[in-house]
Amino acid sequence: MAEEVTRIMIGVNESSLKGYPNPSISSKGAFEWTINKIIRNNVSAFNLLFLHVQVPDEDGYEDMDSIYASNEDFKNMKQKERVRGTHLLEYFVNRCNEIGVPCQAWIKEGDPKDVILNEVKRIRPDLLVVGCRGLGPFQKVFVGTVSEFCWKHAECPVMTIKRNADETPRDPVDD
Amino acid sequence: MAEEVTRIMIGVNESSLKGYPNPSISSKGAFEWTINKIIRNNVSAFNLLFLHVQVPDEDGYEDMDSIYASNEDFKNMKQKERVRGTHLLEYFVNRCNEIGVPCQAWIKEGDPKDVILNEVKRIRPDLLVVGCRGLGPFQKVFVGTVSEFCWKHAECPVMTIKRNADETPRDPVDD
Repeated sequence: MAEEVTRIMIGVNESSLKGYPNPSISSKGAFEWTINKIIRNNVSAFNLLFLHVQVPDEDGYEDMDSIYASNEDFKNMKQKERVRGTHLLEYFVNRCNEIGVPCQAWIKEGDPKDVILNEVKRIRPDLLVVGCRGLGPFQKVFVGTVSEFCWKHAECPVMTIKRNADETPRDPVDD
Repeated sequence: MAEEVTRIMIGVNESSLKGYPNPSISSKGAFEWTINKIIRNNVSAFNLLFLHVQVPDEDGYEDMDSIYASNEDFKNMKQKERVRGTHLLEYFVNRCNEIGVPCQAWIKEGDPKDVILNEVKRIRPDLLVVGCRGLGPFQKVFVGTVSEFCWKHAECPVMTIKRNADETPRDPVDD
């Protein structure tokens, strides 16, 4: 049977309701599910690779001041954003350390769809795990689901884990 | 950590090139991948549930005689088809016995998409695994992929495993 560890890449993002460093409901759900149902007690046979994608467009507009900011201010802001992303990843890394699953985590900038596919090409994980909100077709038109794109195009097996119905926020586009 | 075994349902079908009892390339690939990358040596923590769907429309037309067959002949033919399906499932069950993974296997009749979703509702597996041919959009229009439908609608996490590029037959719609 397989000698090498199974490398599972998980795309994670921040909560749209609580912001950094809180993970989104679907990221957290996908992670916990993978631990409980796939890895179980076989912790040394797996390696979890957490990828968090920061969307650069959102950096500039988050507070209005930034539009008039100097280069230096902009750099500081990026730095701050990066630090907040690191705190998000800490959540997952700490959980892995508690459980004893080896892991790595990193941040990339760009369109989540493209970045995830590129990182799959680069890292060649055995499996890509993505949480999804389980939106209806009408809601999907407005948010363009990353999970569907990854499912179609990723060059490795893909596991999608829908958010539990009882964890869906009032506005299901939130996460 | 989880005490109950992880129940993985795998949809399997016969080879379109070699017929029964040979599994399709994508079914076999999805199964072997699940064993090697997910279950690994942790065999007692998992339970594999093999579902094979037989499409009733194809029964009647497989050989021309059947169109004029009596009720009795038709019943016998169905019986034969059922036996061939059982031989397909034997392939997977035997592999599981070799490896030591507990499993169950059964046959249902109907449209694979509907049957798989209904069986997910009835059986409530932790995970549904489906192999897929990895067709391009043009080829997909003609064959209507079961994997995409299941991915969208199944009430449990879904893992799709594309066929290896080097195992693709001359006509990629074959499997």
